[in-house]
Amino acid sequence: MADNKKMVAAITSMDEDFAQWYTDIVKKAELIDYTSVKGCMVIKPEGYAIWELIQKQLDDRFKETGVKNVYLPMFIPESLLQKEKDHVEGFAPEVAWVTYGGGQELQERLCVRPTSETLFCDYYKNVVQSYRDLPQVCNQWCSVVRWEKETRPFLRSREFLWQEGHTAHATAEDAENRTIQMLNVYADFAENVLAIPVIKGQKTEKEKFAGAVATYTIEALMHDGKALQSGTSHNFGDGFAKAFGIQYTDKDNTLKYVHQTSWGMTTRLIGAVIMVHGDNEGLVLPPRIAPTQIDIIPIQQKKEGVLDKAFELKDRLSNFRVKVDDTDKSPGFKFAEQEMRGIPIRIEIGPKDLEANKCVICRRDTREKIEVSLDEVEVKAGEILETMQKEMLERARTHRENHTYVAHDMDEFRGIFAEKTGFVKAMWCGCQECEDKIKEELAVTSRCMPFEQEEISDKCVCCGKPAKKMVYWGKAY
Amino acid sequence: MADNKKMVAAITSMDEDFAQWYTDIVKKAELIDYTSVKGCMVIKPEGYAIWELIQKQLDDRFKETGVKNVYLPMFIPESLLQKEKDHVEGFAPEVAWVTYGGGQELQERLCVRPTSETLFCDYYKNVVQSYRDLPQVCNQWCSVVRWEKETRPFLRSREFLWQEGHTAHATAEDAENRTIQMLNVYADFAENVLAIPVIKGQKTEKEKFAGAVATYTIEALMHDGKALQSGTSHNFGDGFAKAFGIQYTDKDNTLKYVHQTSWGMTTRLIGAVIMVHGDNEGLVLPPRIAPTQIDIIPIQQKKEGVLDKAFELKDRLSNFRVKVDDTDKSPGFKFAEQEMRGIPIRIEIGPKDLEANKCVICRRDTREKIEVSLDEVEVKAGEILETMQKEMLERARTHRENHTYVAHDMDEFRGIFAEKTGFVKAMWCGCQECEDKIKEELAVTSRCMPFEQEEISDKCVCCGKPAKKMVYWGKAY
Repeated sequence: MADNKKMVAAITSMDEDFAQWYTDIVKKAELIDYTSVKGCMVIKPEGYAIWELIQKQLDDRFKETGVKNVYLPMFIPESLLQKEKDHVEGFAPEVAWVTYGGGQELQERLCVRPTSETLFCDYYKNVVQSYRDLPQVCNQWCSVVRWEKETRPFLRSREFLWQEGHTAHATAEDAENRTIQMLNVYADFAENVLAIPVIKGQKTEKEKFAGAVATYTIEALMHDGKALQSGTSHNFGDGFAKAFGIQYTDKDNTLKYVHQTSWGMTTRLIGAVIMVHGDNEGLVLPPRIAPTQIDIIPIQQKKEGVLDKAFELKDRLSNFRVKVDDTDKSPGFKFAEQEMRGIPIRIEIGPKDLEANKCVICRRDTREKIEVSLDEVEVKAGEILETMQKEMLERARTHRENHTYVAHDMDEFRGIFAEKTGFVKAMWCGCQECEDKIKEELAVTSRCMPFEQEEISDKCVCCGKPAKKMVYWGKAY
Repeated sequence: MADNKKMVAAITSMDEDFAQWYTDIVKKAELIDYTSVKGCMVIKPEGYAIWELIQKQLDDRFKETGVKNVYLPMFIPESLLQKEKDHVEGFAPEVAWVTYGGGQELQERLCVRPTSETLFCDYYKNVVQSYRDLPQVCNQWCSVVRWEKETRPFLRSREFLWQEGHTAHATAEDAENRTIQMLNVYADFAENVLAIPVIKGQKTEKEKFAGAVATYTIEALMHDGKALQSGTSHNFGDGFAKAFGIQYTDKDNTLKYVHQTSWGMTTRLIGAVIMVHGDNEGLVLPPRIAPTQIDIIPIQQKKEGVLDKAFELKDRLSNFRVKVDDTDKSPGFKFAEQEMRGIPIRIEIGPKDLEANKCVICRRDTREKIEVSLDEVEVKAGEILETMQKEMLERARTHRENHTYVAHDMDEFRGIFAEKTGFVKAMWCGCQECEDKIKEELAVTSRCMPFEQEEISDKCVCCGKPAKKMVYWGKAY
């Protein structure tokens, strides 16, 4: 049965070479393809279907909080990009420039949006006049371009898909509340849809977004112990409003500047799902984002009644995303393929099962096999998918806890990263010198100052001076 | 009640100046905003919500036919664009070029996609090896860029949103079938969702897509008698396959070229909806794409029980997209606003209605007022929306029929366009000289050779030689 393992054979073990394992999965599970366009990828049907499920569920959550979708241009005139000083300094080095259009050199070059704060400011300046026009709570689903040197599928590419929310509020308090509200939406989505536990916290001054007053983040831990920033929410205060002149007439008839936020999640979430849940057999998808949730695989499908029963089951399971694999491949090959694609459960049904009025349900994550009476297959399949969704989150949480360490001083800090990779909790005095020194020595960055602070000690892990914050540190994607 | 008409007052009458009427509507109904980026627009929440409903219903229809969504890069390297001669000649004059990225001049400039045939070819070349890999039936929702000189909201802008389907097939017959299948999907969608009747037909050689063997189109007639190409489906034969080397091993073990198609619909459909259904009070939206279908407007809303009843109705009507306008504007103002936004029905409910256990439903299209018992409001609202959807299509069909003329010779042809605008049916010999001459003299183009041919005469309307086809001619957007 050499061909049984065809899809799996070429996969590198994750313990041997995690980066290669990741690359093998994105190719073998047919999520992406490389292109002639350097640093850009094709998101193939299996990959894009995951993105559609992410979009739908995230978008529904946005709309529940009053978000409205819009679409703004993909180009930013250079003069517009330059209006906010910190912002242009942060992005100018990594943008792509359009200099010719319609056969002529442009009078002003246009940058392909790396993010759209400047365009939303230009828009809000037009539509906001009075306090009655606030808040503005818009979002767009689009692609953005950042001219990265080193690229990796989903994690870092020159063009990627994302959503970017941009809001304008009457007061600083309203803006801060919306910033935190969206961070909470992201955390809830990561945990309850992607089954990825996250640490909520604030970025340090050094790590915050270009032009923001405060950047909040959700940080996740991958299977290899590296961190992945999985969603960010920024409070801009009135900095952009002042740079762009976005003012409104308040109830007291005075002119005031608006307060703004922005927040984004990207296709890198698919990379996170792979690296949190995947195993040496391939992808493992949480049921809520699995394009196919149930793969019915007939055994000895040429025997009378087997295929009929398989399709009957498919009809009965129509509340789920379900398919029957009736190709002429061997069952072993089909199992391997279903495992590679990360389909949450497969149902095996053959002549003996028919006789006994049962089938076998096999969970992708634990590979546990469960015999189920055909009379209760709908209920059982639903229960197993629910259980799997919950247990995948709990397993990831346990993994994170097992790979979270505490350092009181630099010796401990070095010792941990000499042997392990994971989150390190350590106190920090708040000055950038220590942050820079830690990065230089250990090649780790501050991931966030978590909302749930613990007082590990009263001294900075680096300089020993009085500590202000506990920080999560880690090597990051 | 001067403020009642505030939203409406500034609208130009469509009979006075149709172009200005159109511009007034897109602004006043808050569908778009202009930007600092020349030729590009903001699609505002009210406009984008229409696009989301179009996307959802079109995408569902695509998926029923086996289409899978993907995402390909927005950039095309110049060498890739040049591989198919006709295609590059068609598009090169109107593309935008990226020449700098990440602070450096690029070795090869990248065009921002005006359409993605070349990228899909590059992709299919990788994924198609055997007949087992066919057909490939992919689609993407994205934005594209064409450097237009004259732009108009939705109808012609430098960047617009669309879907582009691209397929590869084993045989010429499969490709032709898919081309026609998608044209039929478009026609069904236009008529049954947008309530826009369309003529299905084939483009002439002169008007076909750059690189296609055959281009099929659906053509709609706007209220001012001009035509709008509303969706196109192209059969490429094996021309692109030969240019890009896309071959597969067939069952007989020989190498063959694939046959390809592409098909697209764009945000210009929103322009079509405005120009087919709108009136001097504003937008009129077919119920199936109306972001709000029912606007409940309380009368004397401060009187006891009125607002409560309005919100009770909203809950009972939760199968529809419904809102209550409980702002402190006057009812007259609210009516004008609902009419400007094209919300299909409004429900008026006041103290007297409460007493009589009834409400008034007012249809946006006919402005007919219908008294309805509160006990049957759900059923009646549903019926009225259904009726309105159907009657809007029929009204548009009647308008088109009343503005479709027949010409037997050039004198008749001239006579029609001297006084009227609309579709003209006329016979054509099939040679481009006549097509060019008609365009030069009358400023009308061949819209399509309809599938439903009629033999108006046996002579070409222009040269009098034997006619091959009946053609629809018109002035086009």
